[in-house]
Amino acid sequence: MARPCSIAEALTVIGEKYSLLVLREVFLGVRRFEAMARNIGAPRDILAARLKRLVEAGILEKVPYSERPPRYEYRPTKAGLDLQPVLHMLRQWGDRHLVDRPAMVVEHRCGAVLEAVVTCAHCGEPVEAGSCTARVEAPGWSLAGPTA
Amino acid sequence: MARPCSIAEALTVIGEKYSLLVLREVFLGVRRFEAMARNIGAPRDILAARLKRLVEAGILEKVPYSERPPRYEYRPTKAGLDLQPVLHMLRQWGDRHLVDRPAMVVEHRCGAVLEAVVTCAHCGEPVEAGSCTARVEAPGWSLAGPTA
Repeated sequence: MARPCSIAEALTVIGEKYSLLVLREVFLGVRRFEAMARNIGAPRDILAARLKRLVEAGILEKVPYSERPPRYEYRPTKAGLDLQPVLHMLRQWGDRHLVDRPAMVVEHRCGAVLEAVVTCAHCGEPVEAGSCTARVEAPGWSLAGPTA
Repeated sequence: MARPCSIAEALTVIGEKYSLLVLREVFLGVRRFEAMARNIGAPRDILAARLKRLVEAGILEKVPYSERPPRYEYRPTKAGLDLQPVLHMLRQWGDRHLVDRPAMVVEHRCGAVLEAVVTCAHCGEPVEAGSCTARVEAPGWSLAGPTA
């Protein structure tokens, strides 16, 4: 049995190819199937499967915008909006380490180009590498692996 | 052609199944193949392919720890360490939305259980849903899609 872990659980829901790109489009305001398929470059059947899964997982909701013909758009739920910080950090990592020039610039409402920093809600300090200690609570597991 | 985007680029490097779990193990201090395979529950051939890719992408480095027999461990580079914020936010999202009880608790060096918040480096305020505006810089693209 693999290590019990919320990261692994999260990846079963949003870790498949295209799922996070669906969320990117939704956050950019692109919420209809045809436009998503074009912007993501995803095969339609796979995109349909990803959208179904995201709706079932309570990350997106499917809302009708036309009755005749019946047409739907996808909106983020509260749980979906809570994934925005993941995408901010992932985009920033890609901007820094993978591309010459960012394809997109995000501005915070303060007017600055967003430089996103993960901070500790308690002390307000940045959460730097080496500033945290993990404690395993799952029975039968330690940091190193299974204890049994 | 799909939307040019650093999130999509990042996912080509760390988006395949098990890649982020490899990074989780490395950050927890588990850096050797056998222990990783066990803790992740990944087939050995797939794990080997993921490690190779992460080394090629400059996210991990392969460092010998024994000469006879030759044995290696995997350490995060600077680019690898920069993925820690992504994992913090992903773990926290899973803790909040997917599991009853977190399998792991992370403490910040201030002594508090880490509640990670993405903030703006310029104004110090939390980056909440709706607090940012994206501007597309890629030629031929707008927020909605291709302009041509």
